[in-house]
Amino acid sequence: MLTLGIDIGSTTSKCILLENGERIIGTELLVAGIGTIGAEKIMETVLKKAQLSRDDIDYVMATGYGRRNFDPAHGELSELSCHAKGVLFTNPQVRTIIDIGGQDAKVLRINDKGVLENFMMNDKCAAGTGRFLDVMANILQMPINELEKRAELSEIPAKISSTCTVFAESEVISQLATGETVENVIAGICNSVASRVAGLAKRVGIKEEVFMSGGVAQNGGVRKALEKELKVPIKWSETSQMMGALGAAISAYEQEKKRGVLNE
Amino acid sequence: MLTLGIDIGSTTSKCILLENGERIIGTELLVAGIGTIGAEKIMETVLKKAQLSRDDIDYVMATGYGRRNFDPAHGELSELSCHAKGVLFTNPQVRTIIDIGGQDAKVLRINDKGVLENFMMNDKCAAGTGRFLDVMANILQMPINELEKRAELSEIPAKISSTCTVFAESEVISQLATGETVENVIAGICNSVASRVAGLAKRVGIKEEVFMSGGVAQNGGVRKALEKELKVPIKWSETSQMMGALGAAISAYEQEKKRGVLNE
Ligand code: SF4
Repeated sequence: MLTLGIDIGSTTSKCILLENGERIIGTELLVAGIGTIGAEKIMETVLKKAQLSRDDIDYVMATGYGRRNFDPAHGELSELSCHAKGVLFTNPQVRTIIDIGGQDAKVLRINDKGVLENFMMNDKCAAGTGRFLDVMANILQMPINELEKRAELSEIPAKISSTCTVFAESEVISQLATGETVENVIAGICNSVASRVAGLAKRVGIKEEVFMSGGVAQNGGVRKALEKELKVPIKWSETSQMMGALGAAISAYEQEKKRGVLNE
Repeated sequence: MLTLGIDIGSTTSKCILLENGERIIGTELLVAGIGTIGAEKIMETVLKKAQLSRDDIDYVMATGYGRRNFDPAHGELSELSCHAKGVLFTNPQVRTIIDIGGQDAKVLRINDKGVLENFMMNDKCAAGTGRFLDVMANILQMPINELEKRAELSEIPAKISSTCTVFAESEVISQLATGETVENVIAGICNSVASRVAGLAKRVGIKEEVFMSGGVAQNGGVRKALEKELKVPIKWSETSQMMGALGAAISAYEQEKKRGVLNE
């Protein structure tokens, strides 16, 4: 059985092609594929590479921001449950997922049956999200992916007392003006994101293993700061952006199998 | 009896010279007089203009951010109570004070005895403070005091859905890019500050009369938006920045009078 999971985000679309609910036979990511045009394109690409056509796919499950407007889909599911399912598939021991994206942060708690038990989300405040890092990288005139390396060189992370992105921006500017090293300031910036998200995580309740996903998971500075704050090791993966699509493809498989059983 | 009230803020110092607790005989404001150097200077200026020396003053009361480090003071009092006292002196019917400063916002409820009964403050988030307006004026490349005039020309205020300063900044940029008029965007910006502060005010409880102070009180766009939100007329005064110093001078008088009575 072939199923396809597609995660239509606000800035990227991701697609996973799955065989029998367990073997990934195609994967694709498209940045800036805004709306469902990007999603259609990415689906065609993944099919073409696998030398398949739409008719070969038993079930297409959509998730993410644009999931409701994607005609080729047979069903749609929330990001949260798809994301959790994808992470559990690749890392069955995970019980807490910390997802820091470009504009929001979420913490998901999963029980031993693999069911989403509790979650909290911040999508109202730029502090503790990727946007905080963007703002700071902009002040520092530095590409965002350089923050990690530089943070590692810090001796004593600068203390940024404001949580607010706007007030922290002024703090950072004045720290640099008074001679604080860029490395220490960057480490302070990573700590700030970590401490904000740790607050969210503590309210949800941390249970090991902890997995980090979302764009900010790629930033070792924040990841390590979070490990310190929460006093637990944090797993992550370079393909964590694909977890939603993977979860959707698995759900599609489960859905289709259930239908098969009912029709027997 | 001569008393002096001095309000030592983070960016401005203000000073009021009071005769017998009721007649203002000197007033001075100094911008960017950071620390107590500015405060000493402003005190000397007010005394000199009134042809008085320090020894002529019966009591000096300090308030504001830097009040604890001002040697010439005989006593110190919190901004909140001085501010309330100053407003009540000039506007005895006031029961609610909405103070929006450059970095914070406060709402004070005063009971019929003139005592501060309840208050709430936001000094953690730039939204709903003067800083929000600064950020927006910067995007619009417009001096902050131009916002009022331009807001008045708006036909349909733009709807800014994000509360967060950082997210609202992106919204404003994209609204301007998609052809929204600057006037409507500015009116939307004023509404955003007003609705955030109105939330604070509603939690404290509004009772008329309502008085607005702080730097943002000078911005008619925000003031009128607040009137609409709260459905009450809002008083204000061009000298509202002096209220803390005035309250301090009145408290100095009360203090000194009490001491006089005790010593009689
Ligand atoms: S605290 Fe700062 S970053 Fe957070 S919502 Fe307020 S303005 Fe935005």
